[in-house]
Amino acid sequence: MALIIQKYGGTSVGNPERIKNVARRVLATQQAGNKVVAVVSAMSGVTDSLIKLAKEVHPEPNEREMDVLLATGEQTTIALLAMALHGLGAKAVSLTGAQAGIVTDGLHTKAKIANITPKRVHEFLNNGNIVTIAGFQGETPDGQITTLGRGGSDLTAIAIAAAVKADLCQIYTDVDGVYTSDPRIVPNAKKLLEISYDEMLELAALGSKVMQARSVEFAKKFGVVFEVRSSFNDNPGTIVKEETAKMEDVVIRGVAVDKNQAKVTIAGVPDKPGIAAKVFKTIADANINIDVIVQNVSEKGFTDISFTVSSVEAGKATKVLQPVVKEIGAREVTSTADIAKLSMVGIGMRSHPGVAAKMFETLAANRVNIDMISTSEIKISVIIALKDADKAARAIHDAFELGK
Amino acid sequence: MALIIQKYGGTSVGNPERIKNVARRVLATQQAGNKVVAVVSAMSGVTDSLIKLAKEVHPEPNEREMDVLLATGEQTTIALLAMALHGLGAKAVSLTGAQAGIVTDGLHTKAKIANITPKRVHEFLNNGNIVTIAGFQGETPDGQITTLGRGGSDLTAIAIAAAVKADLCQIYTDVDGVYTSDPRIVPNAKKLLEISYDEMLELAALGSKVMQARSVEFAKKFGVVFEVRSSFNDNPGTIVKEETAKMEDVVIRGVAVDKNQAKVTIAGVPDKPGIAAKVFKTIADANINIDVIVQNVSEKGFTDISFTVSSVEAGKATKVLQPVVKEIGAREVTSTADIAKLSMVGIGMRSHPGVAAKMFETLAANRVNIDMISTSEIKISVIIALKDADKAARAIHDAFELGK
Repeated sequence: MALIIQKYGGTSVGNPERIKNVARRVLATQQAGNKVVAVVSAMSGVTDSLIKLAKEVHPEPNEREMDVLLATGEQTTIALLAMALHGLGAKAVSLTGAQAGIVTDGLHTKAKIANITPKRVHEFLNNGNIVTIAGFQGETPDGQITTLGRGGSDLTAIAIAAAVKADLCQIYTDVDGVYTSDPRIVPNAKKLLEISYDEMLELAALGSKVMQARSVEFAKKFGVVFEVRSSFNDNPGTIVKEETAKMEDVVIRGVAVDKNQAKVTIAGVPDKPGIAAKVFKTIADANINIDVIVQNVSEKGFTDISFTVSSVEAGKATKVLQPVVKEIGAREVTSTADIAKLSMVGIGMRSHPGVAAKMFETLAANRVNIDMISTSEIKISVIIALKDADKAARAIHDAFELGK
Repeated sequence: MALIIQKYGGTSVGNPERIKNVARRVLATQQAGNKVVAVVSAMSGVTDSLIKLAKEVHPEPNEREMDVLLATGEQTTIALLAMALHGLGAKAVSLTGAQAGIVTDGLHTKAKIANITPKRVHEFLNNGNIVTIAGFQGETPDGQITTLGRGGSDLTAIAIAAAVKADLCQIYTDVDGVYTSDPRIVPNAKKLLEISYDEMLELAALGSKVMQARSVEFAKKFGVVFEVRSSFNDNPGTIVKEETAKMEDVVIRGVAVDKNQAKVTIAGVPDKPGIAAKVFKTIADANINIDVIVQNVSEKGFTDISFTVSSVEAGKATKVLQPVVKEIGAREVTSTADIAKLSMVGIGMRSHPGVAAKMFETLAANRVNIDMISTSEIKISVIIALKDADKAARAIHDAFELGK
């Protein structure tokens, strides 16, 4: 008898009919001879409605109270899913995050899980129950309700899986799994059967919407093997796990395109020590995450500093930099959203030299100009013109034979 | 510095604007030099929506899960009210029933409060906070979420008032207080400044919608003085408290009309021992509450048994009695909703003889026929034709000079 944790996102439980579908899937898993825990999100739209309600009462709602408010969303779903399971003749019982023994720190709206005491979960499972658990929430040691922030329900599922030593953790979502590239851009993209934590982390960092990096990090830290799969069909998904020697045989795992980037350039910067520090401290103080940075050493003691940010933050970045531009005696700050970031990810890069060279050759052969470059041990990213993004992704996908 | 508990019902917190109004009222009470606890219901309509959602998932939802679901309604309101208080510059913090230390038995959907440990409530109050507490809910000693059933938020307020030894408990509702009669029927009905627990209990039992009997019973048991008043104006309400000698000077406190009654009659019942027991056991087994009972001893060994029930249960009552009618050899069972119950309530009846006589004379003088009579120590009820109800109420209100 295996112990399986299943997580269903907001779209999968978006209305009573879908909740009943999830109930059928959960029950089938139990009837196949397993113990099952279902971790669920708030029904899609509910969290947004609650936030809207809060803003009508206070433009900047207190974070402790926001947690009390938002936690009701998942609490609603666990009860409804348990009821739907009863309707199928199953034994089922719901637990809030607090009831499931999920203890967090006190950082409201983005709390971290401190520990889990899954005593009640085991008791209910041992009595033949399917247990539905509210994702995204927990409580502090002194009993304050907390929420875990974006991607919190995935984190709950993986943390519960670690705590109860589950045999498998399934993350049900609205996509079939992780692909070698976005199938809307690269038609012959293939679903991956498996991927390493590190590769999944790079993909998450690249803005792949499948999962938040923190959940993958947690899974890696505690060695939780999980599967990303669709709640709308029965196709096998993608298994995410510690890398194996065999995984390195594959040079690159996938090609990702991120079109939500903008490039900010400060032109005519006097080439003196401490200038870059001043620029990036200003950006950091404004809570803006930067990605790729390039500093061109130009002639006559002046240089250009360019970096990329999420396109929604480009306006804010240029605004906070205006006074800095004056202060450091630079010429101007400008931004453009006409760029895209193209990335190749794969642990195979470590043992296969020449990957970058082949990528650059492929781009050159397709007349794609490279604006900026950034690399990590298992990733190469290039900033290119937005209009070239799709063509470049398909070319690289083909060059590395990812569709085969 | 007084400690005041205020309870706001679903209509009073029905939308963000009303929640802000409640926040202003709560803050004003604190600024007048008091410690304040605000017990709140779910926003009007929310509980019904949740019940509808549950029924879409399961026609007869499990009661434990129903409690998990419904408890989200009040949890939403406490967070929103705390946020609204922050918006006014107040210190405020919310507590669910469980967090407020409300421990109940395990009878889901109609749990009874076992005890309250208001440690957190005191701590937050002592730190200068207004505390918002979710009405209607608690948890069992082993941490299951429970709800208290109809009128549960009033009960929470009164129980909290008893536990924290509050100086005053104010029940804010959509009426101004308790009146000598329904002002829509008796235009010169007057608001009562005070009323005894026992009189309030009789009015609740008569279907007066101001408060459920169990909350009044709880207040009586623990000596909690409370005031029923409107959240939409600043008029003083009605104080409900232990009776004083002075209260007995008033012969009757009020006249109530209940038009939601039906009379069920079993005709041609053989006059044998045990027959009535069989009839009323059947009714009790079907969970139908009966009110007034009359058995007419007729000639030739046959009798009629009549009783009144809530009109919504009349159909169910006649249905469950069909087999009994056959079994006991009675002629038939019929029901009519063309009746009303008219009641006079007052602890003064105990010391003022002739109250019933004066009531019957007044009805006779107005050509109102009395069908059934039921009395308690401080109440006289008569069943009359529905068409006579309003006229009769006005006549009695005048005869006992309640409008003066």
